[in-house]
Amino acid sequence: MRDTFDEQLSQVFGDLVSICGMVQVAVNVATQALLEGDITLAEEVISGDRAIDVAREEVEENAIGMLTLQAPVARDLRSVVAALRMVTELERMGDLSVHVAKIARMRVPNIAIPDEVAPTIRKMAEVAEDMVVRVGQIIADRDVSAAIELGRDDEIMDGLRRASFVELLSDDWSHGVEAAVDLALLGRYYERIADHAVSIAQRIVFVVTGETDKRVG
Amino acid sequence: MRDTFDEQLSQVFGDLVSICGMVQVAVNVATQALLEGDITLAEEVISGDRAIDVAREEVEENAIGMLTLQAPVARDLRSVVAALRMVTELERMGDLSVHVAKIARMRVPNIAIPDEVAPTIRKMAEVAEDMVVRVGQIIADRDVSAAIELGRDDEIMDGLRRASFVELLSDDWSHGVEAAVDLALLGRYYERIADHAVSIAQRIVFVVTGETDKRVG
Repeated sequence: MRDTFDEQLSQVFGDLVSICGMVQVAVNVATQALLEGDITLAEEVISGDRAIDVAREEVEENAIGMLTLQAPVARDLRSVVAALRMVTELERMGDLSVHVAKIARMRVPNIAIPDEVAPTIRKMAEVAEDMVVRVGQIIADRDVSAAIELGRDDEIMDGLRRASFVELLSDDWSHGVEAAVDLALLGRYYERIADHAVSIAQRIVFVVTGETDKRVG
Repeated sequence: MRDTFDEQLSQVFGDLVSICGMVQVAVNVATQALLEGDITLAEEVISGDRAIDVAREEVEENAIGMLTLQAPVARDLRSVVAALRMVTELERMGDLSVHVAKIARMRVPNIAIPDEVAPTIRKMAEVAEDMVVRVGQIIADRDVSAAIELGRDDEIMDGLRRASFVELLSDDWSHGVEAAVDLALLGRYYERIADHAVSIAQRIVFVVTGETDKRVG
């Protein structure tokens, strides 16, 4: 029974790591679609989201099966409950990438983002993607110190978001209302992806230590 | 043991219903703060969010305690797992009300919303608040048919959101970039509150029937 549980848990955590990989691709491709006004890439992210949903359902079924059949306690229980929550957050991160891709698609054949603000968006996307990669590693290694570090780096995203507001609300803004609204919403989507990464990192701290680390996030 | 479990579950679901009440107040007061440019009301929502967080922690502890001590199966397990998820969504709905209140606070002594679009915002807020009230009742009564109905009404919010985009992207828009961005983000926040209500309704369908009802949401 013990071996079975450990194997199943390791399978579930492995699946979470794969979903991180899928989310990373979604963030990356959605951003490319956005910056290049590429409808094929945008459609790829939008239709590809189904695979993340399917993977999420599988993790949920396995985790609930483990609760039913094995009635875990203590750290084992924390791990299964955390897996259920992390997979919900990963699915949301996929949905947020779809929102980015949809803004890209809506503006084709134009590019939603004016040249001047492309670097800010590119930087936000890089930070978001990097956080997704790191959180995959944090899940794989149950790495508490990397989780705490990730929480601290969330400030970088907050800074970028503030910078984007300064740009779009400045008197020099010459790109009109539509581009400003796109930029504000895109900033929100990338910020939420980062927030979810931080939240997943917090759950790993909880899995390993049984404590909610207040330094994270 | 059986009696204890039922009592505890009914306590947890009762707590979820109270949190719905707190969220309803948050949505209502945040909207009032927004439409009246009232900083006291805005601060009330922002500081009041702590109470929702505390209530969420309590539900989580109780639910995890039930999983540990009682190792429920079948519908009982579904109920406890669903409670853990619903409380996360309710907390997010509180956070989204805080976002609305923060936009209100940022623009004081001005009002973030131009008079012409106040009716759209008011309507979005009403729909969101109504959905929160109904989802509280759906949790209290484990009411599957009301849950399915709530999922259908989500379209009303989508329609309002589209209407707000038509307003802010029209050539007649004369309120500048800042008001447009505020309106776009506010629309997003109310829409997410509604999305979470629909998602909670779906979880109640799952608790009662064991099936994910595809007609919801």
